[in-house]
Formats: sequence, C-alpha cells, structure tokens
Amino acid sequence: MEVAILLFEGVTALDAVGPYEVLRSVPGASIRFVAKEPGPQRTDSGALALSADAGLNDVTAPDVLIVPGGSVEKTQADERVLAWVRQVHEVTKWTTSVCTGSLILGSAGVLDGLDATTHWTAYDKLASLGAKPTAERVVRRGKVITAAGVSSGIDMALRLVQLELGDVASQAIQLGIEYDPQPPFDSGSPTKAPPEVVELVRSMMSGRA
Amino acid sequence: MEVAILLFEGVTALDAVGPYEVLRSVPGASIRFVAKEPGPQRTDSGALALSADAGLNDVTAPDVLIVPGGSVEKTQADERVLAWVRQVHEVTKWTTSVCTGSLILGSAGVLDGLDATTHWTAYDKLASLGAKPTAERVVRRGKVITAAGVSSGIDMALRLVQLELGDVASQAIQLGIEYDPQPPFDSGSPTKAPPEVVELVRSMMSGRA
Repeated sequence: MEVAILLFEGVTALDAVGPYEVLRSVPGASIRFVAKEPGPQRTDSGALALSADAGLNDVTAPDVLIVPGGSVEKTQADERVLAWVRQVHEVTKWTTSVCTGSLILGSAGVLDGLDATTHWTAYDKLASLGAKPTAERVVRRGKVITAAGVSSGIDMALRLVQLELGDVASQAIQLGIEYDPQPPFDSGSPTKAPPEVVELVRSMMSGRA
Repeated sequence: MEVAILLFEGVTALDAVGPYEVLRSVPGASIRFVAKEPGPQRTDSGALALSADAGLNDVTAPDVLIVPGGSVEKTQADERVLAWVRQVHEVTKWTTSVCTGSLILGSAGVLDGLDATTHWTAYDKLASLGAKPTAERVVRRGKVITAAGVSSGIDMALRLVQLELGDVASQAIQLGIEYDPQPPFDSGSPTKAPPEVVELVRSMMSGRA
C-alpha cells in the first residue's frame, strides 16, 4: 500500500502525523511525504518543520492520498497542487483529508455535491466549495474519506486500516500506539464542550484556519 | 511557558507531535524542539524527519521538558544528552515523557524509586532503570509526569494544561484540536484488546522499541 501525505507551508503537524503514525505500522506500507518543493515544510506554529522527501512529480499513483489541514489558503489557490490532487485522485483507492485539508480537496473539485467534514469552525468554507458539511468525525462516501479537526486523523486512519486489512489489523495498530484516550474532560466537540468554551474557541480560531 | 521537546534520530513522531499540538495553543507558550545536533531528526519509520531548531546548549532552563520515545537505545547511552536532561530537570517546573521516553528519563536517573509509566511492552525495561512501572495512562508524581504509549502524550499535555492554566484552558484546547476520540474499536490497552491481538502486537513490537 503506497500512501502519499501532502505537506505544505503552514500545515498543522498532528493532522499529518496522526494518520502517518497509524499507517506506518501497516505491514508493507510505503509512506511518502510530498510537497510542491521537497524539503522541510514549516508548520502553522512556526516551531516545527516536517520533511517532504518527495515532490509532486515523484508521486503519481499512490493507493492512498492524505491531505492534512492548517493554514490552507495558499495551497487552495495553487493550481499546480490542485492539478496534482485531481490527477492523483483519479487513480487512488482512497482519497482522504483531515481538518481543513478538505478545503484543499474541495478547491480541487473532489467534493462536489458530496457529504464531507472538516474542522467544526470551517463548515461554511467547506459548503462554499460545493460539499455538504456533515457533523461526523469520519465521513466516508465512496472512496473519499474526510475527517473532522486535527486529532480525528487517527480515527480516520484506523478506520482505513479496518477497511483495507480487517478488524484485527486495526485493533493491533490501535494497541501498538496505545490509543486508549483518557482526556481530562469530555469537551472535544462543540456538542459536548460547555457553551462558553465553544464561544472562546470560535473567537480564537477566527484568526486561524 | 517555555517548553523544550527533545528530539533524536529514531524518535516516534506522534510521541512528540501529540503534546506539541496541545501546548502550541497555550497563549504565550514558546515551544522549542531540541536535539544534540540541531537539524532534521529522522523518525523511527525512516519516512519523516522532524526539525530541531535548537541544540542542547541553546535551551538550559525550560519550564517544561518533554522527552518522547521511539528507538531510544542510543540516546539512553549518550552521556551528553543524559547530562542535559539531568541539568534541565533541576530547574524545570514539569519534567515529562511519552512512551519509551521514560527510559531516557530513567537512564538519566530522574525516575529512581518513582512510580512511572511507558509503552506497555516496556515495563521490564523501565523497572530495570529503577522506576516502579505503573499501568496508568498518565502518571504524575511531584513534578514528573510520564505517559503511556505513543498517543498518550495528547492526554498528558491536556492534563498539564489543566494543572497550569485550569479547566477552561484544557477544555478549549481539546475542542480546538477536536479531540473527541472515536476509534472503530476499544482495543487501545492490553486490558481491553482481545488476547490474540495483545500477543500479536507483543511479538511485533519485540523487534521495535
């Protein structure tokens, strides 16, 4: 299984690293981080860079495409990247996104008329690109799987492993990364967090993608 | 709040990126990735590198030290890194680890006689370094917080935010990264996964840290 993970300046690290950490454990999987210009890609905080060893021309027929989110505006307007996404999507077995990565898929025309998800603060933007925003953590429609904000890529990738390799493989990888979540609160979605926390985050995120 | 995240060749990406993604959202936090030799540090899969902008001498008094795990043997035997860990630990407010990062803390003498945790396959190694292995996801003893395997660093960092900044800040960051886990199975710990999955992972991980 060949997996291509798109990187770009301003990517949110966990969007990319969550699915990577799940899929790297699939026996025989080959994972390549791909960017317009190969080399280190600075993440949205500025404190970290993730390496892209491959350029767009190096990866033309991956089985799985993963598009993470972050500060995506420049990439949404980059015709070379969008053309690559469209081209690769024609031959993938699975085309996926995490968080606002779905805005890149949408800008490439991949989500036209499709149920899809994104970070909960970005539903309007997703709708403006022709998709139907859907408040589920992982949304699968045919071969397109979109996941909600940032950390949801872990769940998405575990689902993908289940679909591709079965229940035992997904359970084994979950156990391998000891994914037995125990956050101190149950406030990870706008339907669960206290209203004042939702408003706080909404105002904080309005400046961020 | 100054946060230092130690990197090294063979680090497990999610061990470092999980806490990073939580703490980068703390208002005023400064996060620095630190390595013996600054520059890209190849992760354990070989498919990705994480950048360390700082060297050991550049970071001498962080408020928070985070030591991720991975292929840690070389680092456990690296006296320069261990001396830095000891030195920094003297002045930190919090000294933390994720997964087998606790073996590095143990090798530095930080966990002598202390309850601590690590990846569930590494309890014996942790015990051999003087710590008392504890099967909890996040173990806090004084200013030392150790977390279980790989993905547990997210929970550990959310706990740290709660301790430092209170409930609302922790809830807000959890919502910001939409950490509302919904894995397809409940098999993230050896007490929850089917026994045959536990054995499978144990045999797979015996070659890996």
